[in-house]
Amino acid sequence: MNRTELKKLLEEVSQGKIEIDTALAALEDFSFKDLGYAKIDNQREIRTGYPEIIFCSGKSIEQVKGIIAYMNKRDSNVIATRATDEMYREIKQFIPGIVYHPEARIMSITKKEIPKPESYISVITAGTSDLPVAEEAAVTAELLGNRIERVYDAGVAGIHRLVDNIGVIRDSRVVIVIAGMEGALASIVGGLINKPIIAVPTSIGYGANFGGISALLAMLTSCSAGVSVVNIDNGFGAGFNASLINNL
Amino acid sequence: MNRTELKKLLEEVSQGKIEIDTALAALEDFSFKDLGYAKIDNQREIRTGYPEIIFCSGKSIEQVKGIIAYMNKRDSNVIATRATDEMYREIKQFIPGIVYHPEARIMSITKKEIPKPESYISVITAGTSDLPVAEEAAVTAELLGNRIERVYDAGVAGIHRLVDNIGVIRDSRVVIVIAGMEGALASIVGGLINKPIIAVPTSIGYGANFGGISALLAMLTSCSAGVSVVNIDNGFGAGFNASLINNL
Amino acid sequence: MNRTELKKLLEEVSQGKIEIDTALAALEDFSFKDLGYAKIDNQREIRTGYPEIIFCSGKSIEQVKGIIAYMNKRDSNVIATRATDEMYREIKQFIPGIVYHPEARIMSITKKEIPKPESYISVITAGTSDLPVAEEAAVTAELLGNRIERVYDAGVAGIHRLVDNIGVIRDSRVVIVIAGMEGALASIVGGLINKPIIAVPTSIGYGANFGGISALLAMLTSCSAGVSVVNIDNGFGAGFNASLINNL
Amino acid sequence: MNRTELKKLLEEVSQGKIEIDTALAALEDFSFKDLGYAKIDNQREIRTGYPEIIFCSGKSIEQVKGIIAYMNKRDSNVIATRATDEMYREIKQFIPGIVYHPEARIMSITKKEIPKPESYISVITAGTSDLPVAEEAAVTAELLGNRIERVYDAGVAGIHRLVDNIGVIRDSRVVIVIAGMEGALASIVGGLINKPIIAVPTSIGYGANFGGISALLAMLTSCSAGVSVVNIDNGFGAGFNASLINNL
Amino acid sequence: MNRTELKKLLEEVSQGKIEIDTALAALEDFSFKDLGYAKIDNQREIRTGYPEIIFCSGKSIEQVKGIIAYMNKRDSNVIATRATDEMYREIKQFIPGIVYHPEARIMSITKKEIPKPESYISVITAGTSDLPVAEEAAVTAELLGNRIERVYDAGVAGIHRLVDNIGVIRDSRVVIVIAGMEGALASIVGGLINKPIIAVPTSIGYGANFGGISALLAMLTSCSAGVSVVNIDNGFGAGFNASLINNL
Amino acid sequence: MNRTELKKLLEEVSQGKIEIDTALAALEDFSFKDLGYAKIDNQREIRTGYPEIIFCSGKSIEQVKGIIAYMNKRDSNVIATRATDEMYREIKQFIPGIVYHPEARIMSITKKEIPKPESYISVITAGTSDLPVAEEAAVTAELLGNRIERVYDAGVAGIHRLVDNIGVIRDSRVVIVIAGMEGALASIVGGLINKPIIAVPTSIGYGANFGGISALLAMLTSCSAGVSVVNIDNGFGAGFNASLINNL
Amino acid sequence: MNRTELKKLLEEVSQGKIEIDTALAALEDFSFKDLGYAKIDNQREIRTGYPEIIFCSGKSIEQVKGIIAYMNKRDSNVIATRATDEMYREIKQFIPGIVYHPEARIMSITKKEIPKPESYISVITAGTSDLPVAEEAAVTAELLGNRIERVYDAGVAGIHRLVDNIGVIRDSRVVIVIAGMEGALASIVGGLINKPIIAVPTSIGYGANFGGISALLAMLTSCSAGVSVVNIDNGFGAGFNASLINNL
Amino acid sequence: MNRTELKKLLEEVSQGKIEIDTALAALEDFSFKDLGYAKIDNQREIRTGYPEIIFCSGKSIEQVKGIIAYMNKRDSNVIATRATDEMYREIKQFIPGIVYHPEARIMSITKKEIPKPESYISVITAGTSDLPVAEEAAVTAELLGNRIERVYDAGVAGIHRLVDNIGVIRDSRVVIVIAGMEGALASIVGGLINKPIIAVPTSIGYGANFGGISALLAMLTSCSAGVSVVNIDNGFGAGFNASLINNL
Repeated sequence: MNRTELKKLLEEVSQGKIEIDTALAALEDFSFKDLGYAKIDNQREIRTGYPEIIFCSGKSIEQVKGIIAYMNKRDSNVIATRATDEMYREIKQFIPGIVYHPEARIMSITKKEIPKPESYISVITAGTSDLPVAEEAAVTAELLGNRIERVYDAGVAGIHRLVDNIGVIRDSRVVIVIAGMEGALASIVGGLINKPIIAVPTSIGYGANFGGISALLAMLTSCSAGVSVVNIDNGFGAGFNASLINNL
Repeated sequence: MNRTELKKLLEEVSQGKIEIDTALAALEDFSFKDLGYAKIDNQREIRTGYPEIIFCSGKSIEQVKGIIAYMNKRDSNVIATRATDEMYREIKQFIPGIVYHPEARIMSITKKEIPKPESYISVITAGTSDLPVAEEAAVTAELLGNRIERVYDAGVAGIHRLVDNIGVIRDSRVVIVIAGMEGALASIVGGLINKPIIAVPTSIGYGANFGGISALLAMLTSCSAGVSVVNIDNGFGAGFNASLINNL
Repeated sequence: MNRTELKKLLEEVSQGKIEIDTALAALEDFSFKDLGYAKIDNQREIRTGYPEIIFCSGKSIEQVKGIIAYMNKRDSNVIATRATDEMYREIKQFIPGIVYHPEARIMSITKKEIPKPESYISVITAGTSDLPVAEEAAVTAELLGNRIERVYDAGVAGIHRLVDNIGVIRDSRVVIVIAGMEGALASIVGGLINKPIIAVPTSIGYGANFGGISALLAMLTSCSAGVSVVNIDNGFGAGFNASLINNL
Repeated sequence: MNRTELKKLLEEVSQGKIEIDTALAALEDFSFKDLGYAKIDNQREIRTGYPEIIFCSGKSIEQVKGIIAYMNKRDSNVIATRATDEMYREIKQFIPGIVYHPEARIMSITKKEIPKPESYISVITAGTSDLPVAEEAAVTAELLGNRIERVYDAGVAGIHRLVDNIGVIRDSRVVIVIAGMEGALASIVGGLINKPIIAVPTSIGYGANFGGISALLAMLTSCSAGVSVVNIDNGFGAGFNASLINNL
Repeated sequence: MNRTELKKLLEEVSQGKIEIDTALAALEDFSFKDLGYAKIDNQREIRTGYPEIIFCSGKSIEQVKGIIAYMNKRDSNVIATRATDEMYREIKQFIPGIVYHPEARIMSITKKEIPKPESYISVITAGTSDLPVAEEAAVTAELLGNRIERVYDAGVAGIHRLVDNIGVIRDSRVVIVIAGMEGALASIVGGLINKPIIAVPTSIGYGANFGGISALLAMLTSCSAGVSVVNIDNGFGAGFNASLINNL
Repeated sequence: MNRTELKKLLEEVSQGKIEIDTALAALEDFSFKDLGYAKIDNQREIRTGYPEIIFCSGKSIEQVKGIIAYMNKRDSNVIATRATDEMYREIKQFIPGIVYHPEARIMSITKKEIPKPESYISVITAGTSDLPVAEEAAVTAELLGNRIERVYDAGVAGIHRLVDNIGVIRDSRVVIVIAGMEGALASIVGGLINKPIIAVPTSIGYGANFGGISALLAMLTSCSAGVSVVNIDNGFGAGFNASLINNL
Repeated sequence: MNRTELKKLLEEVSQGKIEIDTALAALEDFSFKDLGYAKIDNQREIRTGYPEIIFCSGKSIEQVKGIIAYMNKRDSNVIATRATDEMYREIKQFIPGIVYHPEARIMSITKKEIPKPESYISVITAGTSDLPVAEEAAVTAELLGNRIERVYDAGVAGIHRLVDNIGVIRDSRVVIVIAGMEGALASIVGGLINKPIIAVPTSIGYGANFGGISALLAMLTSCSAGVSVVNIDNGFGAGFNASLINNL
Repeated sequence: MNRTELKKLLEEVSQGKIEIDTALAALEDFSFKDLGYAKIDNQREIRTGYPEIIFCSGKSIEQVKGIIAYMNKRDSNVIATRATDEMYREIKQFIPGIVYHPEARIMSITKKEIPKPESYISVITAGTSDLPVAEEAAVTAELLGNRIERVYDAGVAGIHRLVDNIGVIRDSRVVIVIAGMEGALASIVGGLINKPIIAVPTSIGYGANFGGISALLAMLTSCSAGVSVVNIDNGFGAGFNASLINNL
């Protein structure tokens, strides 16, 4: 709401054209539920298009349960990432409808199906060890309303595994490339297609991988122009971004 | 071209249904012009949607001139980034139609106008010092066929400067956020809109900025989910990515 | 004691105006109790305003018990940070009056109440996972004689949660801002108020967070001028600093 | 302005108790002057207590001149840090009243004297080479309305130089400690006084100093509790913080 | 296959000189077996001279078992590195012929003996703690068809232990030098012989070793010219490289 | 010379079978010319197969001239790397036969031709900007007696430029791959051939390239097994290593 | 043995003045016992003044036992650092005379007392948590034949604890200063005495301590000139160095 | 002065046994000359054995001149390190007796000769490029009263250059080893002698040398026990330390 709009609103309130409650609703941009240890952002769906998504890591089981219980009452779809098996077993006793995706480490409650666009997202990994991150990306995007094509273990040491799937990749609307070690796969894919690529460096590797730094720096300095990067092992962020683009 | 398609092509050649030259053209996926010091990628437009874009940094004026001269003959549009004023003055003597965008450090030759979609890209900066990177992003995207809205110097130290422009930002198809120092602007914008955000850390700052590392790490670890990141000071990459998304 | 004062003291001793013991007391600036493994700083309260505070991490339970037992005899208030639950259970068998604040990981003995100024300190966190650090800060400051207002989980991904509390924050005398990941909250608060802000980066996050480096660098390079920073996860230091300022 | 206050304001507008323009003024929290390359934050003085301070580094002389010219018309005091001698010589031709503090690299225009509290700020340096940073801190704080005591070249290699000045330091309201190399001075001062200390690491040193990292890390991990830290070489931030505290 | 060869092939297909299936075989460069979680690279032996070697770290036992079971059916020799004792015990129940080399952490199945050249590879370590990496290198090279000479614990603190073995080292075709801590052994050996040296930094050490960085940087900056380097603790890579060179 | 040989030599001296001078020559393993500022290693050719090669960087022109003048008298071939144009112009006045290779920054004197093996070394670069490093590698190897095939500007953004040259690369005895930015080219080539690859990261790039770290880490963590790495921009080391291997 | 001496020795052998066995002994500089996994350096005592000292970390109990058993037969004193309690309990069953110093993590066998010089070494720590490193230094030096004065927990937060012990420190021949966190103690002591100081950074601390980096960098950049530094937590190295100096 | 001594002094003052001025002198431990920009430490010679040594880097010529002029009046020997040629030319106009050592970048005034012990210090460098650092070490130690043996360019690529000088090195009282690149020379020398070694890493090298980090880390993690380390390029610190040890 800019200054002009604000003045207009006030004039209309002054002239009785608008009810106070209507104006109030228009003005109270910001609202949330305070649980003490957490302030649940009720307006995020209006503001950014999706309800708040819970990042479980660093929260106690009690805290996660409390947040999900509150959101469950409000008829929101719920997505909780980095959930442990132990969290799930505890929480499903109270919220039986909750679903656990073990490889993706995601818990979800789906109250209303989200319509999916025709176009799809490809999720490509360099190796077998990148699967947990890939599944976090794929399941996140599926829960946010997207079709997914998975192309796993197609790294550059045997590049024909990629080339044989180039058709399905080229026909995606947006591509997620997930790789550890030297992260070269993002550059290769970037040189072969004309779609936006979201690259996820993983912490797969050892020694000079330094917990994912080698892949992170490689992806940031990629000589292929269509590549942007999210945090190391951040499958969720990649899936969320790809969903934003696929739903434009 | 996958295995099935390949077999079919060969059968058609064998049966005389397709001329050898046609098949040859279909098969010679890869072709380029070798200048000795550079192999110009003639197929990139077909493969990735845009002709090869020249990164001038680290190349001699003679090399840049040679590459542009060759591309100019082929009726391509030409974009050359990180071009110095000295390069431009030298090259325009031989290629008078070349244009220089000094703040963006870009040289361009436009032979055919690219049709622009209705939707636009917003380019936001945290401070005045981020302008060269912002202009590199904006001019790149304009040359690739996009409308741009510029919102400069809207950093978090005076956040109302951002809020007053939130309308134009929300209506973008994709948003580029450019910030140095602590790079917080990307997170703020990410919390307020539901469009994909491409964040560009800049090397603006000193001390613990470490040449852009503070902003880079902040953007990679942003608590706002819709943010992906390109290299420090990489305005070109941001503009290119945003154009890919805006033209989907 | 400067040179002039020293000369005067010596003259008064020489003239018999001052007893030797009085002079001795005035001169013996430095005194401590040596437990072998630790030298307890008895003069710190005189010198810096607070008795020595015990940092339990890296000390054995026996060592912590010995230090507390000695201090307990001297009628000092005792504060011991980074205390484990196991330490507490062992030590309370010998010192029943000791109190444990589990979320803050602090043990305390309060022999004399410290008068609290009217003004208060706000402790703000970006997320739920920052609570242990926040409680270390809040409890430290409370034990040192301060009123605290807690505003938890008000990070920039849902900035209205901050804005709704801006009144209580603006009326603080000093503000502690605690955030992991990209640490942007410190800059936002710094742009909205005119009080000193002590920022605490936390190690909450993963990947390019690098154990708190992303938040640390972001806070050090904040574009908001009123921000100073303490060590990663150093809730104690923030609480101590804020107490110093609130008691000026 | 929280929700209750907002509702009340709207009711008063509706009832005609408040003029629209008055309400508008109350609501238009955010306002600024847009120069294209910069948005000058006119409300910062109201919001944070001081007008916007110009950070000249990375801005062109033309840009700095434009910003100062605008602020000069509004009767604000002006402070511009990291100003070069060349900037000053150019700008004083148009704004003769401008003053340059060469060691501090600060330009200033003082239209209204700021009343100074009785209490003062001490600025201590470890060495002679730290003077530019110290002067940036001292002059910033003086321009913001503070008395300063300078204690320069009092590093730990000759600690009596510090001890001889401990009286004046102890009587400060807040202390700025500036040191490069191993930055030990902050810890020493912190062990001797009970006032808040703002530590500024400098890039003075070589080799394993790594542009100020050694002092920065040392100050962040100081075993003295009353120390908080600003960015490497950030004399301005230290002066600004100290002024905030001294004016509480 | 370059353009000329491609044209010739197509002409021969067109003229019926070559069967379609023959041409297809010639063209289908790329083929693999897709297990879902892994795409086994069946052509790698043709392309790079060795079948795909399994890197077990980060794969589940089930995944490793599945890959080995598939490869075992194809009569390939199998090498699986970074295998745990637990993996081996599980897998040998299904594939009894599998062999485990515990110090080298390698599992292998040898179906066809690889002929060994006369020349040999020396594997030298600086200390006793480097043995696991050394055995990974030595066993890898033995399985790939090479003779090995082991010279263990010959570090520079007692350089005569190296000098007494200099004869056997000089007569190698290629030398692997493995060292942690300061990694000086690679430079010493490099100054004494005229054979290619592959240096492996190890993570043996503590403190400023930083998980192998000290040895890695030392080997990369060696003043001896004949040294090239592989990743920290990468015994496999060193053995593979040495085998490539020894089999030229 | 091991202990047995030593005893035998001494016995032969004792028995008069060997002249003292002969024994002396056999024993004086170590000999050099001391110029004060440099000790020229006259035995290096015997010991490592090549005369000492001069690294000019960090040496004064006078020092380089002195070293070359001494070596020139001994009829050695001379190679001096990282030579500036200014050094060359100064030194050729005294040593007219000296040759300068400007792109490679190498000075050389060739007194005796080194016979070249039939096999050759390929030198591949990712981009045009990598040429100086590539020429340093190529010219070094040529001067040491090798045939070279140059494949420049064949990076992964247009991978067909590589594929079209794969024949000449596969037929090399050893391959040097030179790339900056994300350094992915080494992994790609490593996946396509079965020859030893020496990878040279270059400092070409900006931002998260960090002076070559991104390419260095990528090459060290390459998923292709046949890659070993030399220092950033170390064309000389790559050429020297490749020559060692090509001359086995 | 230089060239002249070598010639003389050979002449004397030739003339029968020296027995072959005598010459052999003089020449066989290098000798060791090869246990397969370790080459025990029997000449180290002659060469460097002390027998080889065993670094247990990274060695198996079997390997440590084998090395000690061999050395025990040769009547050497034995020192084994970084020994675990488990190692000791296992080995004392076979070598009952072995002694374990638990805080120092050192095992030792003393066959012959080493005469101690009158002068002594001071070992100073900043905190209680630095004790294990301090004891490693102190016990090492005691076993190598030195008197030790321990001054523990004398850090800069309460500097009078140091000042009260300055007499005993000043009278040392060499001083070891051990500190974690910001490591300032080394600089303070260096400013107060004129004896060589060996500084040991410890990994005590958290956050920006980064495993000892803050103390390491601080000690390396100390503004006190008489400070040299050993590796993080390297109590052994400090004790060994101090012993070398104390026994000059 | 400890407590007992202090009490005794006060009693004697009280009893008139000691004059007030005598007591004052005994008590005024700390004294210095304040030049405003510098506090010259007049007591350092008494306290640490040498007058204050001026570190010119980061000081203006005026400041250096002022400090030297003051010290020159007090009949002290003067040492000023990191002095530029320009500084020297300016200052010798006012202080003609000043001497400049250009390679060492040291200015000195010698008023009283310091008696030199019989024992000497060896200064060894790995390469020719390390000379400036070596000369800083050597000249510093000479000015502080020591004999020096220089062994330059004796690095591990031609280790016989070191071995031929091992006699003179072994007979030193203390050894300074100076090396850049991989810094292996310190470990080699440490394995051959039983004297304390002060290692100086230099910034000589490129790429993964990272301004001296490779040599610094290598020296800190040296497997030779008798090595301690000073800052990168810190020839002065090495010379000062060696002098302390040589004069014990």
